[in-house]
Amino acid sequence: MSELTERTVSIGLLGCGNVGAALVALVADRGDEIAARTGLRLRIARVAVRSTSKEREVELPDGVLTTDARAVVSDPSVDLVVEVIGGIEPARELIVEALKAGKPVVTANKELLANVGAELFAVAESAGVDLLFEAAVAGGIPLVRPLRESLVGEDVTRVMGIVNGTTNYILTKMTEEGWSYAEALAEAQSLGYAERDPTADVEGFDAGAKAAIIASIAFGVKVVAGDVYHEGISGVTPADIDHARRLDHRVKLLAVVERFDDGAVAVRVHPAMVPDAHPLASVRESFNAVFVEGAAVGDLMFYGRGAGGFPTASAVLGDVIDAAANLAKGTHASLGTFGTATLRPIDDLASAFYLTLEVWDRPGVLASVATVFGEHGVSIRSMEQEAAADDDALPDGSARLMFITHAAREADVRATLHALRGLDAVRSVGSVLRVIGQG
Amino acid sequence: MSELTERTVSIGLLGCGNVGAALVALVADRGDEIAARTGLRLRIARVAVRSTSKEREVELPDGVLTTDARAVVSDPSVDLVVEVIGGIEPARELIVEALKAGKPVVTANKELLANVGAELFAVAESAGVDLLFEAAVAGGIPLVRPLRESLVGEDVTRVMGIVNGTTNYILTKMTEEGWSYAEALAEAQSLGYAERDPTADVEGFDAGAKAAIIASIAFGVKVVAGDVYHEGISGVTPADIDHARRLDHRVKLLAVVERFDDGAVAVRVHPAMVPDAHPLASVRESFNAVFVEGAAVGDLMFYGRGAGGFPTASAVLGDVIDAAANLAKGTHASLGTFGTATLRPIDDLASAFYLTLEVWDRPGVLASVATVFGEHGVSIRSMEQEAAADDDALPDGSARLMFITHAAREADVRATLHALRGLDAVRSVGSVLRVIGQG
Repeated sequence: MSELTERTVSIGLLGCGNVGAALVALVADRGDEIAARTGLRLRIARVAVRSTSKEREVELPDGVLTTDARAVVSDPSVDLVVEVIGGIEPARELIVEALKAGKPVVTANKELLANVGAELFAVAESAGVDLLFEAAVAGGIPLVRPLRESLVGEDVTRVMGIVNGTTNYILTKMTEEGWSYAEALAEAQSLGYAERDPTADVEGFDAGAKAAIIASIAFGVKVVAGDVYHEGISGVTPADIDHARRLDHRVKLLAVVERFDDGAVAVRVHPAMVPDAHPLASVRESFNAVFVEGAAVGDLMFYGRGAGGFPTASAVLGDVIDAAANLAKGTHASLGTFGTATLRPIDDLASAFYLTLEVWDRPGVLASVATVFGEHGVSIRSMEQEAAADDDALPDGSARLMFITHAAREADVRATLHALRGLDAVRSVGSVLRVIGQG
Repeated sequence: MSELTERTVSIGLLGCGNVGAALVALVADRGDEIAARTGLRLRIARVAVRSTSKEREVELPDGVLTTDARAVVSDPSVDLVVEVIGGIEPARELIVEALKAGKPVVTANKELLANVGAELFAVAESAGVDLLFEAAVAGGIPLVRPLRESLVGEDVTRVMGIVNGTTNYILTKMTEEGWSYAEALAEAQSLGYAERDPTADVEGFDAGAKAAIIASIAFGVKVVAGDVYHEGISGVTPADIDHARRLDHRVKLLAVVERFDDGAVAVRVHPAMVPDAHPLASVRESFNAVFVEGAAVGDLMFYGRGAGGFPTASAVLGDVIDAAANLAKGTHASLGTFGTATLRPIDDLASAFYLTLEVWDRPGVLASVATVFGEHGVSIRSMEQEAAADDDALPDGSARLMFITHAAREADVRATLHALRGLDAVRSVGSVLRVIGQG
């Protein structure tokens, strides 16, 4: 029962913002309980910050704070490094230095992993040291450990995630309160969910970085943020939301990673219509969820808080305890090997599509539209027509056609839309949304 | 990069029913991929079955099958033992023997762990060998590993699970199709979801065993099946389901484990009304889900298939790879220490309650009913009244009162119901259901 002898593990913390401060508070609050259950006594030994004069909510003994991050990493009293400064440099350099010195690293840095993850994984693997990053993908949700460990033997075919809380909050408010995109964004900003410049969230860059990491660990291949196709939600209109609701669907921003039989992978982020009965449809407000489809295990979903100081610090703490336990045993968790990914471009992917056309309501118009679909190999699953009398937004003599297609290649749908725009009878092409998650 | 040298790990499989056969198939299908990603070559070396003459769907080389389970455990070529025979003996004895021989064990046996888990954990811990059991709690859903590892530092206050697929299927059909309990049970039996004798499922014994295991690992204390309070779903009526729907709730069979500030724990299984907006409400059909509430991480939910050969075998496979990797590294996952649980009896727990009374519709009846609630310290949150004219089931001159209480002690609610039955004005007490998961 050697585990019962308390062993102190000293942590060097790089960054003491939202997440770092929450981690310091958790280690103080939970330290005795953790020691009782695991035999590990965690100690925040050094904390690197930008300025030591700033007022902080956490209390730290004299001499713990420093502005010299490199000194924290190289301090011989530091056993394990936690990186929560974000960004690529100097985080990358500091982590490499720690790993090469044999110190396990826990990071919450998605930008770093989505860009230079493979390099860091290789350094960790050859140093025989843990590099853990549960907090980098979906905040407090245990996802990386289940994917890396529980499901490493599973044939995971697709993972679909709501991995950005800001956009899920905006879409929830548009759906449940009838707000416009601009109104919902303004409210998200006033609540602190969205930045003043919301581009990284609303255009899908944040979700794209997470998608790259998910693809890497789910499929064991190297995928970087630049490999991810993305569309954001700034173009989603109340009409899209309303049409989705009438079809018993909801609009969600999804990160979708897939692996095909030939081994190729596809990684994309875009808004999609999800059927109400799909578990992802009921993920509301700023919650995140990741839906995993496996050949043997079937459908799984992991749900929780994808951001916030304490949820993220909780995930960091889980990794710290894991790495500390490994350190005490003189072992480390293998990251496995990462192959080179063959990426399938978006044009070659297939989805069902929802799309609307405004047309002049005259004989033969449906036939000519249907012909265009047929010529491009896009098969129509259902069609509904709305006359001008039903909708004030439609001018007299016009009608709206709403189509759902069977699964069709993206390139074929794009060519269909291009050809439809050229028809005299077509006034305009309206919403175009992928439909995902149907039985 | 020593992990890249392939290492063979030979598995002794005890039992080759549904789950065992699926595991054999998965190891055959996924072996190359697992070897490529982890460096571990899994081999099914010996398989103990009740009869070697029975036809099997899986193909095994000559000499692998045997009826001598003890010989499989002691076979020097067997590195790791998988137990999927179920029941307490001889599973317990075989597992103890394997652990004492230094062989890691993976088990899917909830009955065993819910009854003699603490003994087995102690044997594993003192032998310094892995005992992994992801498949024993919620089938294919990664739950044990996240609770034991990711959340070991988290202050988990409550876990609520839909952990029995049969009862969730029955309640889903009662809700969505308007079937009676008997109709839904018959359909579950014809689909093979329910046994001919459905007692273990419908009376909450199966969920109770899982609740005991969840409480043990979430709180690090010893809880056994006999500690669990349980009520089943055989008394749930279409009227209960209907009332729940009118209040925007659904009826679910929940396993609830809680830890209080004084360290006491409570473990119970019973039907409850869950608000539609709660993530557990949208868990349909035979799916399972476990909702975890933590002080730092907030709300988490894990969703998936809680039973079935392949989902369960997928969880076993994840554990096998984990144990095999540890074996290769000469280490093992610590189970931590398990303290003695102080159990809080059901009488001292508090819940909001939904309850209906049929009363004679005459002056003063509500006042006398409200007085009884007040005298027992049960506070009413909302009341609705239905007259005989609204409901054919009510005789002329009577009315139905539907109450939702604020959180109240179970013993006080029981005393209230007893006193209400004694009132002249009260014809009968109808549904009584706990309400769980309100904001």
